[in-house]
Amino acid sequence: MSDSPQWAICVAYEGSGFSGFARQDGQRTVQGELEHALSIALRRPMEVVGAGRTDAGVHALRQVVSFPWHEGDPEPEALVRSVDALTGQGLVATWARHAAPDFSARFSATAREYRYRLVSAAPPLFLEKFAWYVPAELDVDAMRRSAVALVGEHDFRSFCVTASAEGKRTMRRVEVLEVIEETHLGEECLTVRIVGNAFLHSMVRVIVGTLVEVGSGRRGVEYPAAALQARDRSAAGPTAPPHGLVLHDVRYPCDVWL
Amino acid sequence: MSDSPQWAICVAYEGSGFSGFARQDGQRTVQGELEHALSIALRRPMEVVGAGRTDAGVHALRQVVSFPWHEGDPEPEALVRSVDALTGQGLVATWARHAAPDFSARFSATAREYRYRLVSAAPPLFLEKFAWYVPAELDVDAMRRSAVALVGEHDFRSFCVTASAEGKRTMRRVEVLEVIEETHLGEECLTVRIVGNAFLHSMVRVIVGTLVEVGSGRRGVEYPAAALQARDRSAAGPTAPPHGLVLHDVRYPCDVWL
Repeated sequence: MSDSPQWAICVAYEGSGFSGFARQDGQRTVQGELEHALSIALRRPMEVVGAGRTDAGVHALRQVVSFPWHEGDPEPEALVRSVDALTGQGLVATWARHAAPDFSARFSATAREYRYRLVSAAPPLFLEKFAWYVPAELDVDAMRRSAVALVGEHDFRSFCVTASAEGKRTMRRVEVLEVIEETHLGEECLTVRIVGNAFLHSMVRVIVGTLVEVGSGRRGVEYPAAALQARDRSAAGPTAPPHGLVLHDVRYPCDVWL
Repeated sequence: MSDSPQWAICVAYEGSGFSGFARQDGQRTVQGELEHALSIALRRPMEVVGAGRTDAGVHALRQVVSFPWHEGDPEPEALVRSVDALTGQGLVATWARHAAPDFSARFSATAREYRYRLVSAAPPLFLEKFAWYVPAELDVDAMRRSAVALVGEHDFRSFCVTASAEGKRTMRRVEVLEVIEETHLGEECLTVRIVGNAFLHSMVRVIVGTLVEVGSGRRGVEYPAAALQARDRSAAGPTAPPHGLVLHDVRYPCDVWL
């Protein structure tokens, strides 16, 4: 670990334009596009670390990436402007800061907040790209009561879509899981707000798919608790589609900033 | 005027896909697409009247159109489903009702509500298609104080973009004009909410353009009042772009419904 500070840059993106966060050859990805822009702006090969590896189609309001600072790098505002000028449609840099030498956008994060939006009354129009349309009358109270079982520190193996979660640590701590009735752009939606220390692959989308099974009446209120107990992916609900999901925020201890 | 009832159908649309509401040969318009769908669903030539003739790029959350009911027409829910099946992307029918024989979506309306969204902090990402980006620090308080002069019954000739408003009645009554700080999909925006009996061509967009002149500090708080007095289009601010505007609602007396 060098003594040089790290850069932290916050970016927002509209997920439909990307094959996910993680770099993949021949695909437009958030990491790939950011590394390309930064390597031009900073004139050196670039590899960045992201706070959350969002899947294809998932949006981010405040994703944070980190990479080493070098002597002579531009000021934060100038770097933000360069990144904005060098990235394409649907990807915006919002701020840049200097962080401690041991800072990692991924490992220093103490909490991530995701929001998942559902529309059930009528097909969403303005929210079409940002909400999952579930054409059913959802019992919000049942969803709320069933969600309580998922709050706290648990083995979320049943809620992980990676082919084999074998041998991996699948304990995660969910701090907040609430179902909120909201209106965005005049359209009513149901927002599942979830805050946790870290998340397994597609964990939020499986939680949402499981809660929708309860809300639609196909499963009872005890379903999420039973799914958690089973430690088996097949015991939980379907994976909700990516376009309803937003990485809303990432939190760090305040002493990481220089 | 026949004794047959009228149909009223409520539709929502995403304005970027249409060359406005009013039918135009060779263009995709809301009226054209609805008349085409209805003529297939009801097997007769169709001409509809809309509550508001929105310009190209302007959205609608609740636009109402009317046309005569005929013996043997389907039930309201069935008509809504047919219209939805027969119209393309970005146009959704939400309800259909039977109205009195003298009902007109346009002339029976007692009030229209428009909302115009502005984003000023950073370029909008999720709201890109639904908000005007004004890269300036806006003085919301000055906008609010200056807007007061436009509330009430006035000659809004200065706020009408039609080449010649000569000889036309340009008196309109603005009932509500407020500037609200909101968050949609996690992005902060400023919403200008305006309710009035009826509106001149592009009147809301010129009002917003005028308020932004005040908010950005280019003009003083007295600017909208002076523009109103002048009765001359050149005395008011620029026409705000269409994509920030939504026809939010249309109101009718409750006794029009059968």
